[in-house]
Amino acid sequence: MIASGPIFLPKGFKFSAATAGIKSSGKPDIGLIISDPIASASAVFTKNLVVAAPVQVGRASLAKSNGRVGAVIVNSGNANCATGAAGIRNCKTVCAETARLLKLRTEEVFPSSTGIIGVQLPVEPLLLQLKFLISTAGASVDHLRRFSEAILTTDSKPKLASVPLRSGRGAITGVAKGAGMIHPQLATMLVYLLTDVAATPAALRSSLRNACNESFNAISIDGDTSTNDTVLLLASGASGVRYASVGKEFDQALLEICRSLAEQIVADGEGVQHLIRLRIEQAKTRGEALQVARAISHSLLVKTAWAGADPNWGRILAAAGRSGVALDPKRVSVLIGSQMVCRNGVASVFSEKAAHEELSKAECKVEVRLGRGKASLEFLTTDLTTEYVRINADYPT
Amino acid sequence: MIASGPIFLPKGFKFSAATAGIKSSGKPDIGLIISDPIASASAVFTKNLVVAAPVQVGRASLAKSNGRVGAVIVNSGNANCATGAAGIRNCKTVCAETARLLKLRTEEVFPSSTGIIGVQLPVEPLLLQLKFLISTAGASVDHLRRFSEAILTTDSKPKLASVPLRSGRGAITGVAKGAGMIHPQLATMLVYLLTDVAATPAALRSSLRNACNESFNAISIDGDTSTNDTVLLLASGASGVRYASVGKEFDQALLEICRSLAEQIVADGEGVQHLIRLRIEQAKTRGEALQVARAISHSLLVKTAWAGADPNWGRILAAAGRSGVALDPKRVSVLIGSQMVCRNGVASVFSEKAAHEELSKAECKVEVRLGRGKASLEFLTTDLTTEYVRINADYPT
Repeated sequence: MIASGPIFLPKGFKFSAATAGIKSSGKPDIGLIISDPIASASAVFTKNLVVAAPVQVGRASLAKSNGRVGAVIVNSGNANCATGAAGIRNCKTVCAETARLLKLRTEEVFPSSTGIIGVQLPVEPLLLQLKFLISTAGASVDHLRRFSEAILTTDSKPKLASVPLRSGRGAITGVAKGAGMIHPQLATMLVYLLTDVAATPAALRSSLRNACNESFNAISIDGDTSTNDTVLLLASGASGVRYASVGKEFDQALLEICRSLAEQIVADGEGVQHLIRLRIEQAKTRGEALQVARAISHSLLVKTAWAGADPNWGRILAAAGRSGVALDPKRVSVLIGSQMVCRNGVASVFSEKAAHEELSKAECKVEVRLGRGKASLEFLTTDLTTEYVRINADYPT
Repeated sequence: MIASGPIFLPKGFKFSAATAGIKSSGKPDIGLIISDPIASASAVFTKNLVVAAPVQVGRASLAKSNGRVGAVIVNSGNANCATGAAGIRNCKTVCAETARLLKLRTEEVFPSSTGIIGVQLPVEPLLLQLKFLISTAGASVDHLRRFSEAILTTDSKPKLASVPLRSGRGAITGVAKGAGMIHPQLATMLVYLLTDVAATPAALRSSLRNACNESFNAISIDGDTSTNDTVLLLASGASGVRYASVGKEFDQALLEICRSLAEQIVADGEGVQHLIRLRIEQAKTRGEALQVARAISHSLLVKTAWAGADPNWGRILAAAGRSGVALDPKRVSVLIGSQMVCRNGVASVFSEKAAHEELSKAECKVEVRLGRGKASLEFLTTDLTTEYVRINADYPT
């Protein structure tokens, strides 16, 4: 399992972390990645129309710099979202000052924020930490770990994954914070993927899109899309290995890392008791498999049944029926673990005890066969527990 | 409030109820409505592709009889869904036997079922009650109340609404069971609307569609669509008043009844602490207002915030942002009660205490202004409580 395995640090990156006092907990809340040489970059952002200032600024900077990033500056504790023109100005101020100290252009500094929304970003405390961040940045695994901790909000642990390319040919390492359920903030997913392979932004874009589609776009905890979600891929080129010479291996390693991080994020969701591996089989297209997977994994009745380890396949069938996919219920079957519990739309003879036991595991398998074609998909999701509601309803009066 | 007001019984209908032993609680679980003369009818069904046997049979019967219904036979405790060809046969058997005893055609008997899915309907116990149901049917308010109780599942109380047309010109009365959150069954909404006005099925259809759009289609508790949802409108014509002579007044009264029943259903949702009147203003079309209302009312983060009476407008804004409507966040404002908490996408100065107090009421007002046009909508929804999760996750081992 790469999550707990060794970290292969790609060359050309340094990391640091500090405490600016944005989080009331007093935990580290600002992190820096420096790429030297300046990295080629590609990013994927939230599709929510309500987007935080750092997403707007980061997207514009990548366009202006033609996909060049020399530093990433991330704060936790404040999302800088729904903060209007002042929020954009504040974000740019932090980028500009980081750039000045590192002798970069402003657009070569990529910003991220995660935390409470609707509150202006406290800029001065952040600016005060920049010199410390730069002077203490280092290329060790310990430095990376400190960065990975500084970007967390209510995550219970940092999320890392690392894969070496064939010996001496570079490495890819990913660091993420989770889309846990967070009060009073929005859940936000931030992912930084770092490699020392040399690649153009265009090559990175295509590799990144494919990896995201098969990982971060196939997970769901509560169906809410954050205003700050960002996945950033940086290629320093410091290994001297060119993307063209490792293309397929690179794509595979990137996907493996994204899948591991996606899994760590889902497993760390607030109040999650069961991680559900939901397979959709026999769809006409991958797109319709995704549509069915989302309808099932967003159904409150399905998610609460999973919380109770209840093999209630009727709720799964009904959720598929309202997914918008023109399925024929008479061809739909449902499996819990390896047992078929619904065959062609009708109850199958099965051991309820065994199905209940499968759903009582920390990690459960559920499969839905649509009887329409040959496309399939694995989707990661969770149950919905009273703990989730308690955390998210907990209003501090 | 018509819910607790007097019942104006439309002429031409008789009601009865009995206990067939399908519900393990031993409560009444079979109900009958007889229309004499045979009524004109129109119905609206679930849009879920997974549809229960009675919905399939009822739809076919209405088509075959050209919209004529002489009796409605309803059982609770078993949904007769995901029961295959045997389920269809069982449903038809109950209709045919009811028809034989009442000297009707089979297609003039309209069936409904609500309860557990995936289990075959116990036909014999139902058939055994038919003679008793017919011999005890009566036209009093007490008879109607007994019918209204026999169709309940986990509803906490019956749901009735009644409006007289101008004196001596007929009446409309509605009886419903709720889309509460039900374990281990699916939530199902059944609604019967009865009038003694004389109308063609075509006139009823148009009046019913309008009323449903403005009532049952503008409510949501958990976003799950049942496999059995049915709204049936029957016009006995026994008052001698023609629809053409009361058209507008009839449409208005029908809408009023549907709104009252919809409200009673939402307020009776399992674990519901707060009923939320969500107004969407300044939409381009009613359709997009509905799209935004649904995204907000299905967001777990929004619903859990409401459970905690937390004026977290950021979650509302973010849910609107992912609704699929091409809104400009800089033009979106959010009100809680009469206070503006977010103005043009940015935090507004407001009393958090007053907003918390508004959300602590049993019935709360939330308004979202989209800044796009003149269409508006009122949508009824609920919070999401730990009680909801507890009830729906409660697996009997």
